[in-house]
Amino acid sequence: MLQQSLPVQPNSASSEASVSSESARPFLTWQRILDWAQEHYRCRPFSKDEKIPARPGLLYLVQRGAVRMVGVAQVSATSRSARATNTTAEEAFLGFVGAGQPFEIVAQSPFTLHSYAHVDQTSVVWMYWHDLDNWPHFRREVLDAFRYQHQRKLLWLSTLGQRRTIDRLLGFLTLLIEEYGEPAEQGYCLPWTLTHAQIGSAIGSTRVTVTRLMGKLRQRGLIHTQDDNLICLPGDITLRR
Amino acid sequence: MLQQSLPVQPNSASSEASVSSESARPFLTWQRILDWAQEHYRCRPFSKDEKIPARPGLLYLVQRGAVRMVGVAQVSATSRSARATNTTAEEAFLGFVGAGQPFEIVAQSPFTLHSYAHVDQTSVVWMYWHDLDNWPHFRREVLDAFRYQHQRKLLWLSTLGQRRTIDRLLGFLTLLIEEYGEPAEQGYCLPWTLTHAQIGSAIGSTRVTVTRLMGKLRQRGLIHTQDDNLICLPGDITLRR
Repeated sequence: MLQQSLPVQPNSASSEASVSSESARPFLTWQRILDWAQEHYRCRPFSKDEKIPARPGLLYLVQRGAVRMVGVAQVSATSRSARATNTTAEEAFLGFVGAGQPFEIVAQSPFTLHSYAHVDQTSVVWMYWHDLDNWPHFRREVLDAFRYQHQRKLLWLSTLGQRRTIDRLLGFLTLLIEEYGEPAEQGYCLPWTLTHAQIGSAIGSTRVTVTRLMGKLRQRGLIHTQDDNLICLPGDITLRR
Repeated sequence: MLQQSLPVQPNSASSEASVSSESARPFLTWQRILDWAQEHYRCRPFSKDEKIPARPGLLYLVQRGAVRMVGVAQVSATSRSARATNTTAEEAFLGFVGAGQPFEIVAQSPFTLHSYAHVDQTSVVWMYWHDLDNWPHFRREVLDAFRYQHQRKLLWLSTLGQRRTIDRLLGFLTLLIEEYGEPAEQGYCLPWTLTHAQIGSAIGSTRVTVTRLMGKLRQRGLIHTQDDNLICLPGDITLRR
C-alpha cells in the first residue's frame, strides 16, 4: 500500500484493510513496473517458507502474497566457545511485508536479516535503486513506505519494552492486526497464520509460554481464533483509541 | 548523518563515529536550512529531559545534541478498570536521534510516541514536508536517513526477540554503541548516559534486573564503563563480524 500517506489514520485496521488489495495501487505505474520486471527477468514466484535470496543494495517489491522478515542474532552473552558449538542461532520474526510494499535487506553484523515467502505463490520483483530513476514519483512512494514501516517498528518496539510477556503478546498482536487485519464476522483477523514459536521469537518468549498466554487472552475475550487458526481481535479492541 | 548512504558499512562503529560531527554534513545546504529555520522561528533549544512538543505531519531535524525517542503503551492485558486507575503508563526507550538526523512522530494508538532532549543544549529545527520542496536533494537525504533508521530498528527487533534477557541486553548495547559509539581508550563508548531503568524499558525488563545483568556482563569482560557511567564495549566485540 505504497500510496498510503503519513500520518497514519486512526481506525487504520478498517481503512488499511480496504486498500490492501493490489487494485488500490495507481494502476498505470504499477503495471508498467511489473511489465518492466517481466521483460528483464526481475520477477519470481516463491512457495511458502522458501527463502528469498535478497541482497543488500537491491530494492524488492512484493507483487503478490506476503513476505516474512526474520532477524538472526549472532551475539550472545554466553562464552564464545559455547556459542561456536551452538548450531541453532536464534531467529526472530520481524514482521510482514504485504502486497504492494517494498523491502530491502542490509547485511549487517552482529545481526543478519532474511526474508521468506510467508504464503504460497508469493511473487517478488527486484530492482536497483537507480532503476527507479525512470519512475521518480514511484521512488518517492517507496521511500514514504519505508517511513511508514519505520514508524510501525517504533510502535512495535514500544510494546516489546513492556515488562510482562502477556502485555507484549497482546500489544504485538494488536499492532499486527491493526496493520494487516481483515474484517471478519467478529472484529478483525490476521489473514495469515503465525505459529506460536514465531510469535515467541518476536516477543522474546518461548512457544510454550505463548501457547499458555494465548489461552489466557482467549479466556479474557481479548483475542479469538477463526478458521485455520487465524488470530482475531474483537472489533471494539482494535477501534478502542 | 543524513549523507550516510545505505547499505551500512561494516565497521560502522568507527566509520559512523568519524562522520557523526556536524561538520561532516555538506555545509551549504545544511547552513541554508539552519538560516531559513532561524529566520522563520523554526528552531529551538531544549534542556536535558525536556519534552519536545513534536506533532504529526511535521519533520524535525536535530541540529545539536541528541533526542531520545520514547513510546508509551496504552494496551495492557489486565482488565480495563484496573488500567483506568493505573496512572503509571509504561514508557519504553526507543532509541536516540543524533545531530544531523531527522525524526518524526506519527500519533497512533494504542501506542504513542514522544521525544525528549536527551542532553542539555539540544537544538531542534522543524518544518513541513512541503518546505523541503526548496531542497529536493535534501529531502532525498532525509528519506534515506529514515530508510537507514528503519534498518537499524529491524536489527533492534532482532535482539529483542532473543529469549534470555542478558542476550537482549548485550545485543541492545552492541547496536547502540555500534551506531553512536565514539572511540575511547579501550573500545567504543556511548557518548550519553542511559539509566538502568531506561535500558530496562527498552528490553522488556526492570531496573533491578538490568543492574544485576550489567554486573554479569562486566565480570565477563563484555562491557565496561568509563567516566560518568558511560557504557563501553571492548573494541574486539564491536569489530567482531
